[in-house]
Amino acid sequence: MTAQPTARRPLIAVCGTSRADPDTDDLAERVGALIAARGGIVVCGGLGGVMAAAARGAAGAGGFSVGLLPGDSPDHAAADVSLALATGMGEMRNVLITRACPVIIAIGGAYGTLSEIALALRNGRPVIGLQTWAIRAPGDRIADPGIRLANHPDEAVAMAFAAIDGESERG
Amino acid sequence: MTAQPTARRPLIAVCGTSRADPDTDDLAERVGALIAARGGIVVCGGLGGVMAAAARGAAGAGGFSVGLLPGDSPDHAAADVSLALATGMGEMRNVLITRACPVIIAIGGAYGTLSEIALALRNGRPVIGLQTWAIRAPGDRIADPGIRLANHPDEAVAMAFAAIDGESERG
Amino acid sequence: MTAQPTARRPLIAVCGTSRADPDTDDLAERVGALIAARGGIVVCGGLGGVMAAAARGAAGAGGFSVGLLPGDSPDHAAADVSLALATGMGEMRNVLITRACPVIIAIGGAYGTLSEIALALRNGRPVIGLQTWAIRAPGDRIADPGIRLANHPDEAVAMAFAAIDGESERG
Amino acid sequence: MTAQPTARRPLIAVCGTSRADPDTDDLAERVGALIAARGGIVVCGGLGGVMAAAARGAAGAGGFSVGLLPGDSPDHAAADVSLALATGMGEMRNVLITRACPVIIAIGGAYGTLSEIALALRNGRPVIGLQTWAIRAPGDRIADPGIRLANHPDEAVAMAFAAIDGESERG
Repeated sequence: MTAQPTARRPLIAVCGTSRADPDTDDLAERVGALIAARGGIVVCGGLGGVMAAAARGAAGAGGFSVGLLPGDSPDHAAADVSLALATGMGEMRNVLITRACPVIIAIGGAYGTLSEIALALRNGRPVIGLQTWAIRAPGDRIADPGIRLANHPDEAVAMAFAAIDGESERG
Repeated sequence: MTAQPTARRPLIAVCGTSRADPDTDDLAERVGALIAARGGIVVCGGLGGVMAAAARGAAGAGGFSVGLLPGDSPDHAAADVSLALATGMGEMRNVLITRACPVIIAIGGAYGTLSEIALALRNGRPVIGLQTWAIRAPGDRIADPGIRLANHPDEAVAMAFAAIDGESERG
Repeated sequence: MTAQPTARRPLIAVCGTSRADPDTDDLAERVGALIAARGGIVVCGGLGGVMAAAARGAAGAGGFSVGLLPGDSPDHAAADVSLALATGMGEMRNVLITRACPVIIAIGGAYGTLSEIALALRNGRPVIGLQTWAIRAPGDRIADPGIRLANHPDEAVAMAFAAIDGESERG
Repeated sequence: MTAQPTARRPLIAVCGTSRADPDTDDLAERVGALIAARGGIVVCGGLGGVMAAAARGAAGAGGFSVGLLPGDSPDHAAADVSLALATGMGEMRNVLITRACPVIIAIGGAYGTLSEIALALRNGRPVIGLQTWAIRAPGDRIADPGIRLANHPDEAVAMAFAAIDGESERG
């Protein structure tokens, strides 16, 4: 018997490209470390680039990361991913990442990242952006705040945790 | 025995919001009619707004449309959808739409549409835009053409068929 | 404005292996032809073996078939599939097939077919079996009718349409 | 830089019904505890019955479990699930469970469990059965070992780890 739901550590998605880009990867590694330092779990796509860097940051801070891989084999996961789940769904796993997390931090400018931004916004998840896409609806008719821009990793992670706390208070 | 692959009618995705917006719906209905008139099949999300309008346009021109529904019941499909496939996947069906079609036409400015634009671009599918999102990568580092803007439905459909023909020639 | 939902042609899934097996394929071709003759649409996995045979049967009877392919390319569809939708989901598309159809006909004995039988039963869909798996719950504790056995294609298709009509009456 | 792939703890799926059944749940709790005691991670569907029991067993042994939930909210996860991932895919998440794990242990006799058995066998994953379905191909033409029967939880878990070790040696 359990008297109340387990308080699980918050899941924060870190979305970004698999292509190597040292400056962007540095941002992601710092974001991963800060999430772990605050007790969060990094959820990412499990491959290289931003994903590997976020997992590396989490590992360096003694934290935990989940990689939701597009392919069939966990052997393709970046070395520092703590838990590698091979989905075999291809890019469809982007939807899983944005669904499983109450907030996402988007870093950099690949199309896969843009899809994660859009899917998260579609599902009402707050999106924190670090050097990422700018989007503008036709006629600017959308009053929705859209992507919330952060200037550096510390601010991004602070905004992400604040968004989760805000949701909890409203919930 | 079959000597060569069947020449199937080309599939063209028409992506847009379920919210009613008469001007946008008019564009979508015209797009659906033009696709059907040129022998194409409209693939859409099967619900209201742009999706229903595209199916209505196809039906009015004697054509065929496929609705890939997010929910569990085909009864939620718009009336003019020819073939209603209930996927039960929620917004994950957006990925199916962009995978199943060699080209997409995006109309209007909802987040779901933005996700379909991004998923199509991620998979190397040409995206034709009609009064839709403007996107800009950070630092404009992406040389990729991104969304190809059309000014009216006739141009959008002409561009979509040209994109398919171009792919075939390269293929 | 539409006064009432469009009456669409009923979708009937035909599930079976891609491996060539002339006797089983003959059953599937006959099933496909009978579904088409009664105005139904064959939905299948779009590849070879039973799937190709069901599509061939439908085509021979002037009917229509949908192939939900596991891979990324519609070019892998069997020649007689009318509409080829590449899902890129691998075997996860088995779930789509069983969700999209109100009834399935399972033919032969591959593991993929067994998964479709189980997924359909899980979702409360009637399953008609033709020379297919026998399944027995531990302790035979399940009172559910499970797979409904048919002795030949005519009986299988008659049972499938009766199941759809039964659902409609209850609905 | 990482010289070699991280050795991650092995993932073992525990599949079974959400319906309460004290005898079956006891088996699952014992299985979960034994997996954790041997350093494995329990992967399950995250809800009640067998899933909750396997997670409870893992937690009691100081271990870790992952729940891949069918719905949109992690709040529906059983209390002892360590990591709750809401997939929003419905029963399609059964495919994820069988893909993500190199071996599954199936307990009891629900249709969802049968689908997981079949999906795992389809993908060449060893399936260990504890008081679960008996399946028989038509004409018994399949030479494949199919479900490997275990008589009690200790044997089931020993067989699961042996199957993983066997795969590693062949790999």
